[in-house]
Order: sequence, then C-alpha cells, then structure tokens
Amino acid sequence: MTYCIAVSVKEGLVLTSDSRTNAGIDNVSVHCKMHVIATRDDRKIVLLSAGNLATTQAVLDQLRRDIKDGAETNLNTVHYLSEAAEYLGHVSLDKQRRHVNSGQNGFFPAATFLLAGQIGAEPHGAYLVYPEGNYITTSEQTPYLQIGENKYGKPVLDRILRIDTPLEEAALCCLISMDSTMRSNVSVGPPVDILIYHKDSLMLDEYYRFQEADDYLIQLRRIWQEKLSEGFAALPQLNKQAATTFPVAEH
Amino acid sequence: MTYCIAVSVKEGLVLTSDSRTNAGIDNVSVHCKMHVIATRDDRKIVLLSAGNLATTQAVLDQLRRDIKDGAETNLNTVHYLSEAAEYLGHVSLDKQRRHVNSGQNGFFPAATFLLAGQIGAEPHGAYLVYPEGNYITTSEQTPYLQIGENKYGKPVLDRILRIDTPLEEAALCCLISMDSTMRSNVSVGPPVDILIYHKDSLMLDEYYRFQEADDYLIQLRRIWQEKLSEGFAALPQLNKQAATTFPVAEH
Repeated sequence: MTYCIAVSVKEGLVLTSDSRTNAGIDNVSVHCKMHVIATRDDRKIVLLSAGNLATTQAVLDQLRRDIKDGAETNLNTVHYLSEAAEYLGHVSLDKQRRHVNSGQNGFFPAATFLLAGQIGAEPHGAYLVYPEGNYITTSEQTPYLQIGENKYGKPVLDRILRIDTPLEEAALCCLISMDSTMRSNVSVGPPVDILIYHKDSLMLDEYYRFQEADDYLIQLRRIWQEKLSEGFAALPQLNKQAATTFPVAEH
Repeated sequence: MTYCIAVSVKEGLVLTSDSRTNAGIDNVSVHCKMHVIATRDDRKIVLLSAGNLATTQAVLDQLRRDIKDGAETNLNTVHYLSEAAEYLGHVSLDKQRRHVNSGQNGFFPAATFLLAGQIGAEPHGAYLVYPEGNYITTSEQTPYLQIGENKYGKPVLDRILRIDTPLEEAALCCLISMDSTMRSNVSVGPPVDILIYHKDSLMLDEYYRFQEADDYLIQLRRIWQEKLSEGFAALPQLNKQAATTFPVAEH
C-alpha cells in the first residue's frame, strides 16, 4: 500500500509520501514514491505514485524518455499543469493496457498519481490522475488530494487544512496524517518524504526525509499525543442529568 | 453504511452507534442500530448491528423469539458472553444462507454485530461477530472493536483509549471518533446513540441520544476543533536547517 498527500494552499504546495511497497505481506520493500520529472528553470513538476510498482516505474521511464527524445508532448513542453495531468493519464493508461490481459489471476496493473508543481507564470496546483487516465484537482473548500490508504489520515486534514493555512502548518498536518496512517496500516511506512514548495519560487529547495527513528518525528508524535490528551481533558463532560435508561420497548 | 464502536475498559463498557441506513444513495433512512435483547436482572446484553438491514432485523427477531419461546439456547440461558457471541453467529449465518442464492445481482446479505454486556458475576466484555459467524473480542492492548466504516475514526481511538481510560473519557473519545466519521462519510449520520455501562451494575441507566443539531455535540465539535488548532500551534516546527534540495538524480 501507499499513502501520499498533495496540499495546494495559497502560499504554495506541500507534498508528502511514505516509502513502503509490497507484493503480498511477505514481500515488503522500500521505494521512494516522490519523483521530480520536470526541473527546467521555468517549471517544476513533481509526481507521487500509488498502485502497481511496475506500472508506476514504466510511466516514469516513459515521461523521462519523452523529455530526452524531445517528444512533441512532454513535461517540458506542456504549458499548463492540466495539460501535464492529461498527458500523464494518457501514458498511464497506455502502460496499463499492455499488461491487463496477461492472464495472471489477481493481477492489477492500476496506478494512481498526484501531479503537482508550477509552470511559468501559471498558478501552482495539484492534480490526482486516476488509473482510468482522467483527473481532478483541489478546490478552495478541499485544498488537498490523497492517494493510497486515504481514510485513516483524512479527518485531521479536514479539521485543519484551509486554503489560507500557512505552508509550515500544512506540513505538520500532513506529518500527523501520515503518522495516523502508519500506526493503523503496516503497509504504509517510513522513510517519509516531504517537499514544501513556495509559490512562484520555481525552486525545490525545502525537502525533508524522515527515517523511522527520526528524533523530530518521535518528538512530533509524542507532543501531538500530549496535546490530544489535554484536548480531551478540556472537552465538556456529558450532562449526566440528560442520561436516560435505554428505552428497550422502542427497539 | 454504519459506524459502531464497542469499548471495553476496566471500568465498564461504552457503546456508540450512528443511525443512518441506505439502500443506494437515493434511499436513506433512519434506523437505530443499538438493540438491547437480554434485560433480565442477572444480565444485560446489547447488540450493535451493521450490514444488510433485512438480515439484522431477521436476526434480532429470531433472538427475541428464542427468548419468548424458551428455546434451549437463548440470550437468557447462556452463561457466558462468548457463548452468546457463538449463538449470535449461528443465527446470523442461518439467516444469511436463506437469501444468498436468491439470484439477485449485487445482493449482499452479510451483517456484522457487536455484542456487549455482562452476565452475572462473569466479567463484562465486548465481542465482534463476523458475517461468517465467528467472533473476536477486545484485548488489553486494543480495548475496542468497530464495525462498519471503521477507518476514519480509528486513529483517535488508537491514540486515546487505554484499558484504564475512565468511562467518561472513553465516551468523549467515541463521540469524536463518530464525528470524524460522519464528516467524511455521508452514509454515516445522526442521531448518535451512546450507552455507558458501569461494570457489575447490571443497569443500562446511562444512555444518551444526540440529534444532528444537539447543542452539546455542536459544542463538543467546536471545542475539539479549537484544541486541535492549539495543538498544532504548539508542535515543534520543522528544522529549516535540515531542509535540502530535492535529490533529482537519486530518483
């Protein structure tokens, strides 16, 4: 499994990914799921990947070859992020189709991607590209996208992230969301990659990688736990006067 | 969908359920999912149900008829909660089997139950009964069970609940877990039922039902939101000195 988040707020982007892949629970390995493909001075485009590892690698290889070979459409020639998402969807679909009829039982070539970055003077943004090749982007009300094991880590994103959340706070929110997910699903695991992109900078210079025993991550987890406990202690108690006997007859 | 939690801690039990059922997104109704079946003075046994509504109703009806008809095994004659769970699994499987071969496409008769309570001097406890009829119980390390839409609300349970968590705090934790789930999945909805059972009391006298616009629930949600935001403000910031440029070559 995998868990990746792309946050797109006013100040820029926060991209977060775990690094655990598995082919069955008895075959677990570490693969970085954050990939920078287009790094020309006028653009930065980053991909996060989930799903079949062979498909994601085939897609990334094709994207890189298209750039090197000067294909008509590639991530260095597109003018818009939405164009990049469309192109990525096209490549992904093509790679999946080559293996879908291989006749192997239980084989799923599907892969899902997050594509985020900025091209020239166009606004920064993030896109989720489905295995079917179509895509969605964020909105003012929901300034984030997730792929992989999305449920455990969603409530904290919903409660904290707003379009005007500062980048640093959004990054902490993603780390807490990732921590919640890693606790609940062993197929999501460290190292955790986090990349903060300040809008209009066209620089990828704020990147962090956290190993399992990282002091900062351990401290973050401990303090978050303390703050949650304090929060619970401050919640209004149930009003015992409002309690009733369970109405057996009604049920 | 549905979301129900059964917490079994040293002080007793906390049972929580939502009330939304649906047969497709265009057919939503309100059904209480908390049912008290055995209420004799020497025992209290409560069920929470998820899954096919026809199956859960057929099972509950059978359990009640078995009591009225004085069947050899019924919830008033069993001596142990594990025996009750085994019997419930047996009845559930029987009801499902009657409809599984009806030939309707997309028909799933499966139902899952939480069974909790106390019988005489036996310890209180909670059991999860699978659609297959088998069951599991809680442990010292994991003092809760969930059925239905379990993922959104799990992290807060994992972070807060311990075997010695007081009942009142466990109840607040369940309400927050339920609130997180209702925000993320519209097929989980109010009213929210919560029943607190103090061990060895053999009384079901602390029951609360919260409607959607309940003042207390709204206050709880608001204060929790504030406490989370304060918690984020208190987290240690990322160490900017540790940031690097994204290592393109490595990927």
